[in-house]
Amino acid sequence: MSSSENNTSIFPKGEKAAPDYFVGTAYVNPLVPNDPTLHIQIWDVVFEAGARNNWHTHAGGQILMATKGIGYYQEKGKPIQVLRQGDVVNVPPHVKHWHGASPDSEFTHIAINPNTQGGVTVWLEPVTEEEYNG
Amino acid sequence: MSSSENNTSIFPKGEKAAPDYFVGTAYVNPLVPNDPTLHIQIWDVVFEAGARNNWHTHAGGQILMATKGIGYYQEKGKPIQVLRQGDVVNVPPHVKHWHGASPDSEFTHIAINPNTQGGVTVWLEPVTEEEYNG
Repeated sequence: MSSSENNTSIFPKGEKAAPDYFVGTAYVNPLVPNDPTLHIQIWDVVFEAGARNNWHTHAGGQILMATKGIGYYQEKGKPIQVLRQGDVVNVPPHVKHWHGASPDSEFTHIAINPNTQGGVTVWLEPVTEEEYNG
Repeated sequence: MSSSENNTSIFPKGEKAAPDYFVGTAYVNPLVPNDPTLHIQIWDVVFEAGARNNWHTHAGGQILMATKGIGYYQEKGKPIQVLRQGDVVNVPPHVKHWHGASPDSEFTHIAINPNTQGGVTVWLEPVTEEEYNG
């Protein structure tokens, strides 16, 4: 957790995310494109309130760093975790999960995908209203 | 670059950095300890004005994300680059470099070390006053 709340942004807002993989509106800024030397890909993502990505997995795992607002993270079969500025999540390889904003707050995180030589993201089905409100 | 300057911190300030590898005072918060599954290590580092780390290399490369204040980054044989909030640096594997604050401003960055299965940091000699002021 941060010692002080922060209402400004570190990175400029990116392009609108592909609607195929999101419910609601999100903006994706590619900070580090997939790099064949560093084997890493990094985005800054802004989710509008209620927006979330589909269920998905990463072959090489993922790190999420919450930088602004209030968000959600859920692994399949576990309760939703609330994320606030300064929270860091380690997503293990191949674990099915989703992330996004909470219903009443925009949410921004940095998403770090390491070990991209094994593949990046496998997109799955959308997160239903029932799952999101669970 | 960020669209708006930010004077608060995302992560709490960590412990004082080991003086063996730094000139001046820095604080290191280990956000992701070296992880044998994700092969990544992440720190948030706060450098007081004038502070910098020694010359060093990373076998797996490094990503720096400037989040607050004004900092410096230099690769051996190249000019110093000034870093401001929102700037991202990709440090290639085995490239000798250093980073730190500028003389008159504290500086905070997130340091991401991927591919740690090949080793993490090789520490070298301190950055001299002449190099720092160059």
